[in-house]
Amino acid sequence: MAKKLVIIGGGDAGTYTVEALFKKGAEVLKQFEITLVKKEKGGSASICAVPLALQGVFNMKEVAEIDPPETFVSHGIDYRTETEATGINLEESSVRLGSLGSPGSLGSPGSLGSPGSLGSEEEIKYDFLVIATGRRPRVPDVLKIPGAEGEGRGLAGVYTMSTVEDGEKIEAAMNSPEAKNAVVLGGGTIGLQVALAFLKKGLKTRVVVGHPTPLSSILDPDMGSLVRARLEKEGVEFIFGKQVKEIKGDGAKVKSKVKSVVVGGSEAREGGGEREEIPADIVVISRGMIPNTELAEKAGLQIGETGGIVTNQYLQVKRRQGQAEGGKYIKNVYALGDCVEVVDAITLRPRLSQLASSALVQAKVVANNLTGVGYSLEPALSPAVATISDFQVGTVGITTETAARFGMKVVSGKKEKPTRARFYQGRKTMAVKLLFDSYSERLVGAQLVSEEMVADRIDGLCNAIRKGVTAKELSRMEKSFDPCVSLHRDVMVDAAESAVEQFGKD
Amino acid sequence: MAKKLVIIGGGDAGTYTVEALFKKGAEVLKQFEITLVKKEKGGSASICAVPLALQGVFNMKEVAEIDPPETFVSHGIDYRTETEATGINLEESSVRLGSLGSPGSLGSPGSLGSPGSLGSEEEIKYDFLVIATGRRPRVPDVLKIPGAEGEGRGLAGVYTMSTVEDGEKIEAAMNSPEAKNAVVLGGGTIGLQVALAFLKKGLKTRVVVGHPTPLSSILDPDMGSLVRARLEKEGVEFIFGKQVKEIKGDGAKVKSKVKSVVVGGSEAREGGGEREEIPADIVVISRGMIPNTELAEKAGLQIGETGGIVTNQYLQVKRRQGQAEGGKYIKNVYALGDCVEVVDAITLRPRLSQLASSALVQAKVVANNLTGVGYSLEPALSPAVATISDFQVGTVGITTETAARFGMKVVSGKKEKPTRARFYQGRKTMAVKLLFDSYSERLVGAQLVSEEMVADRIDGLCNAIRKGVTAKELSRMEKSFDPCVSLHRDVMVDAAESAVEQFGKD
Repeated sequence: MAKKLVIIGGGDAGTYTVEALFKKGAEVLKQFEITLVKKEKGGSASICAVPLALQGVFNMKEVAEIDPPETFVSHGIDYRTETEATGINLEESSVRLGSLGSPGSLGSPGSLGSPGSLGSEEEIKYDFLVIATGRRPRVPDVLKIPGAEGEGRGLAGVYTMSTVEDGEKIEAAMNSPEAKNAVVLGGGTIGLQVALAFLKKGLKTRVVVGHPTPLSSILDPDMGSLVRARLEKEGVEFIFGKQVKEIKGDGAKVKSKVKSVVVGGSEAREGGGEREEIPADIVVISRGMIPNTELAEKAGLQIGETGGIVTNQYLQVKRRQGQAEGGKYIKNVYALGDCVEVVDAITLRPRLSQLASSALVQAKVVANNLTGVGYSLEPALSPAVATISDFQVGTVGITTETAARFGMKVVSGKKEKPTRARFYQGRKTMAVKLLFDSYSERLVGAQLVSEEMVADRIDGLCNAIRKGVTAKELSRMEKSFDPCVSLHRDVMVDAAESAVEQFGKD
Repeated sequence: MAKKLVIIGGGDAGTYTVEALFKKGAEVLKQFEITLVKKEKGGSASICAVPLALQGVFNMKEVAEIDPPETFVSHGIDYRTETEATGINLEESSVRLGSLGSPGSLGSPGSLGSPGSLGSEEEIKYDFLVIATGRRPRVPDVLKIPGAEGEGRGLAGVYTMSTVEDGEKIEAAMNSPEAKNAVVLGGGTIGLQVALAFLKKGLKTRVVVGHPTPLSSILDPDMGSLVRARLEKEGVEFIFGKQVKEIKGDGAKVKSKVKSVVVGGSEAREGGGEREEIPADIVVISRGMIPNTELAEKAGLQIGETGGIVTNQYLQVKRRQGQAEGGKYIKNVYALGDCVEVVDAITLRPRLSQLASSALVQAKVVANNLTGVGYSLEPALSPAVATISDFQVGTVGITTETAARFGMKVVSGKKEKPTRARFYQGRKTMAVKLLFDSYSERLVGAQLVSEEMVADRIDGLCNAIRKGVTAKELSRMEKSFDPCVSLHRDVMVDAAESAVEQFGKD
């Protein structure tokens, strides 16, 4: 008899999980009766492409629905859109569902959607449960500041950027003829990508960053400065090291619209310091994402120090202490994606790894364990690449700041030079920073900024970190050469050489 | 007192050696009195760029002299162009030099070139000797065939492609209005690159390949077929599995010019089989390169089974057996580059590694050992990439044929798919073949064919091979994702997965 598998969430994590099961073939698939519930309308989306679609790099419609519900339905999935899981009962092995939209779910072959259940709640049983509830924008402190209240997340004209719907709203707002001044709060990848969309649209674009440089969670300040310089050259105006004090509206009683953002020194949050009022027609709050864990928490699952659902190497979840079976992992309940915390491969401490690529790797783990193949998740190195203007920004492993936070001593090697032979027209420059553990001399982190060749190098360095490659080994590596596509004295090798020279000097 | 260092050869190996010494700074450099002797005129060239310059990708003049002699002279090097080393006396620690060109050498601050030595022979002493005599085209069997005699390497219009001078001659020949039919003998990288130059020039271009597919030394037949298909589509005509029987001239008594090439079945070399006569105004012989070892051999050094000078991990050379100190390595005499044999990292047998990138790695070893830093050469994996038409062809480690030759059993995983997200305009296709040792399941070879992203992946895979990465590990690797520069389900990961599925199946 087929096992009932319920997947909560239709973002990358949920989608990749069913796709990993599809890949195992019809024989395996028919051992399951799969229900996927998701709050959103429509099929699977490419969320990370949305800010790029705002820039016009992609078509918003195309990225908003990569695969329609029919794709999943055709594999026999009970694919329920506009459906929310409102409760998990671990004792009963059931999930309570509430329909958010129109009666019945799209293409559902199962019980829900049949006459009688329209709009109402329903309890469905599971043999296996997968929690893939994703993440949401971090907005609490901004919501607390005066003025940032009203419709939705605040005044009209104030947005976050975490769903396709958000993207569509921002697109409409920036295309409005009234849009003149845009302010982005946050200097992470999404914030910068959205800022570039505003800039391309001809809006005056300001980015407020709490840190002294952008992308501080993935780049050291010296590397972040390269990105800063490029974006400033293009016309982005940065306001660094300041916090948002107030988001002011136009004072209208009904549908008050954002008018300005007040920022000030970061130390004294309340008053004082140099305050600055920035005119704003559009504000995007992009200050990080936090795991959606309410459902898991309510069900009695353990939430970790990073705010993510605690998982073991099989991505099974854990019952919270102080209840029956407290502290034990649950064999038939998995969680993955942006809502979980995993183990960092360098620090061996818990971390979030909210990347589509992390979800992909995790989905394989879940799918294999669901089908009885023992399969562990490796501690995360979280290689990432992001397109920011003409730059590709890549990162893997830890930054200098993370190393310091965990008391690790690192030696870095840095180099900036061309990517291809001297006589190649149109070669680019690449900046590489490599971080090595000062004791073992092993690679523990890498940061790359260039207009090309970043992603594959980051992935190669990710494997190198995992296998314990040392600075010496990297500095002596054989490097393929063709004048059309490479430089014989490679920047990465030079960066490693520079680190080698520093070992034993301090 | 400064040590006398003599370097024989000004190709990549010799050049990289002095550059590696430059990099150590003035303090180290002044401990040496360096003489570099080279047969060619002018400074350092980028030989591997010459076939691409023939295609018009680069300017021939630019690649013909990357750095002029003055660059080396300004570092205090006695840089002797048009000078041949005619003998090495190991007992006396001296090298006999003969001047090939005009009296005196360019910019020489030393004794040679002073009045009285013009054009004559000279003996110079060394404390350290570096042999970097390079390679030359493999032509013996072609030279033996009827007709392939006369001026230079045969009839007028018959060329090899191994020096800048060769490139200039071929360029002149293909630009002649009489040039209509070009024939390239050999389906390696250089042969194909030269063939593409002829094709671009509008010549009827035929390539005669002894094997059933092109690039057989670096690509398995299935991967080579992709290159074949692309080049055939562009208009190159291949003649596979046939040998050259005869190169016919026009019969002129003086300066007989090539008229045609006769090819036939490869089994019966003399007569028989289907013979075919191909019209030819230009013939380029490109059937591999052999190490230049005459000088080393004459000096009593050991030549290995591959035809290269035998070296140890410090790249020191070995005295041939049957003489005083026979079988022993010589502490102050090094050899590197295309003229040496090294150890293959997979088979642990001797091999040639005639790549600029190999010379670069080896030059570091020599420079470090010369300056007293103990530094060993790692066994070679020889990652390589070549631009062939719009393709980048990459290879590292061993091919299936090499594995079979050495009795290794391999399992391969192969996949062909797009490089970037579905909604990215202009994404390319990439074909990946990974070879794993069937016992350890470790990666031992990789072949990539694509219009992009090949070099960096090959280098990453090279490090992966060196660190013993398994199919399972590669199939589970974290892979950075940005829709502009990657595909979330990567072709390399899929290829590894496909191999994993095969383990234990046979």
